[in-house]
Amino acid sequence: MGKQITHRDVLQKFGTRLQHIRKAQGLSQEELAAKLAMHRTYIGMIERGERNPTIRTLYKIAKTLKVSAAELLPF
Amino acid sequence: MGKQITHRDVLQKFGTRLQHIRKAQGLSQEELAAKLAMHRTYIGMIERGERNPTIRTLYKIAKTLKVSAAELLPF
Repeated sequence: MGKQITHRDVLQKFGTRLQHIRKAQGLSQEELAAKLAMHRTYIGMIERGERNPTIRTLYKIAKTLKVSAAELLPF
Repeated sequence: MGKQITHRDVLQKFGTRLQHIRKAQGLSQEELAAKLAMHRTYIGMIERGERNPTIRTLYKIAKTLKVSAAELLPF
């Protein structure tokens, strides 16, 4: 059996990916949070893989960052 | 302004995509539900866009269907 991504890993991979794209766009957590009408700490938790957002939240984030949902979930 | 996907549409698009892939694999809702240890009615609700699953659930479904998460979220 190959190495498998666990359900926990998936949130960390998503969070890391989100952080990467956010930084590449020169946005702070505060700035992204403001665009999303979310709290900065929530963005921080997502980026650390401590939250399990819904598909609708994923879509909202993708739309705000002008990327596809698929770009945020590279697995 | 172009036509935009709303947050509601996104769940319907995801549901339709899931149904398409499930059927292409010759699986019934019951069979997919059993593989996921979920109830058949929950699969039905997801396919009709009546549920807003989390990223972890999305990943679990993708893994079970042996597709990438991106294939389930073509937007």
